[in-house]
Amino acid sequence: MITLFIASSLDGFIAGPGEDLSWLFNDRDYGYKKFLKSIDTVVMGRKTYDFGKQYTNPPFPGKKNIVVTKNKKLTGTSTGIIFCNLNQAYRLISDKGSSKNIWLVGGSALISDFINKGILHKIVLSIHPLILGRGIPLFKKINKIKKLKLTGCKSYSSSLVQLTYHII
Amino acid sequence: MITLFIASSLDGFIAGPGEDLSWLFNDRDYGYKKFLKSIDTVVMGRKTYDFGKQYTNPPFPGKKNIVVTKNKKLTGTSTGIIFCNLNQAYRLISDKGSSKNIWLVGGSALISDFINKGILHKIVLSIHPLILGRGIPLFKKINKIKKLKLTGCKSYSSSLVQLTYHII
Repeated sequence: MITLFIASSLDGFIAGPGEDLSWLFNDRDYGYKKFLKSIDTVVMGRKTYDFGKQYTNPPFPGKKNIVVTKNKKLTGTSTGIIFCNLNQAYRLISDKGSSKNIWLVGGSALISDFINKGILHKIVLSIHPLILGRGIPLFKKINKIKKLKLTGCKSYSSSLVQLTYHII
Repeated sequence: MITLFIASSLDGFIAGPGEDLSWLFNDRDYGYKKFLKSIDTVVMGRKTYDFGKQYTNPPFPGKKNIVVTKNKKLTGTSTGIIFCNLNQAYRLISDKGSSKNIWLVGGSALISDFINKGILHKIVLSIHPLILGRGIPLFKKINKIKKLKLTGCKSYSSSLVQLTYHII
């Protein structure tokens, strides 16, 4: 099961200009801890890795951290991190023996790759009550219509809405 | 009270390529009839008018139909329709005597104009369970962050989610 667990503004941005994330709510965890506990493997793009490693390296200690990059110099494993290209990442997470619950962290390009490849199963989207106007879009270059089934809908007093979809 | 009552895909498109609307659900009315009953005035862009008048002209019989256009030849009233430019439209709907409950129908450019001008009060957004990938975006060229307050959140067995926000 590969899940995209992510936050966006109502107008579909996952970050503001200059990769601004200051608008993200941190008044409560919105199911994040419980979700993280269920995950054994995280997959992220190189930019997302560079962002995350500022805080901890690997960004998700205790999980298998897969970083997708075209930079061959980064290929190989290092401190609990697997650097690999997109096809290698697909193979790694298709190996059901080692990865059962996978979190697709982002960013935008990697999300599109997974959706277009048809291997994303689930989306948990926390819609923040904001129109940002500009920034990094959640969905871009999706090459085919995808139908979804809503399997969860929660609203919070903070005006955040969390929607869960399974991709059909 | 000016309300944007509109449907979009999860990736924020109000129409697919070629203005395709065939993906819109029509299995039930999702509050549309009740909403329409509460409305005395509708405001729409010229393209939206051209689309609507194929079915009825004016597109919303029994309502004040305001069509925003830069085409001066269309200025003037005709069969229950007021053709006017953007500033004239603002003045008309600011005249509380004649218009109390206004529906901003669209399209995309007019929605941006209203949001950027700070005169939109409420958004009722019906999110269809689809990722379209391409089409006409709901929000574009918004020039300033807008904060929202969630005042309604309904989900349906069809997987449609209807969110109501007041713009702060």
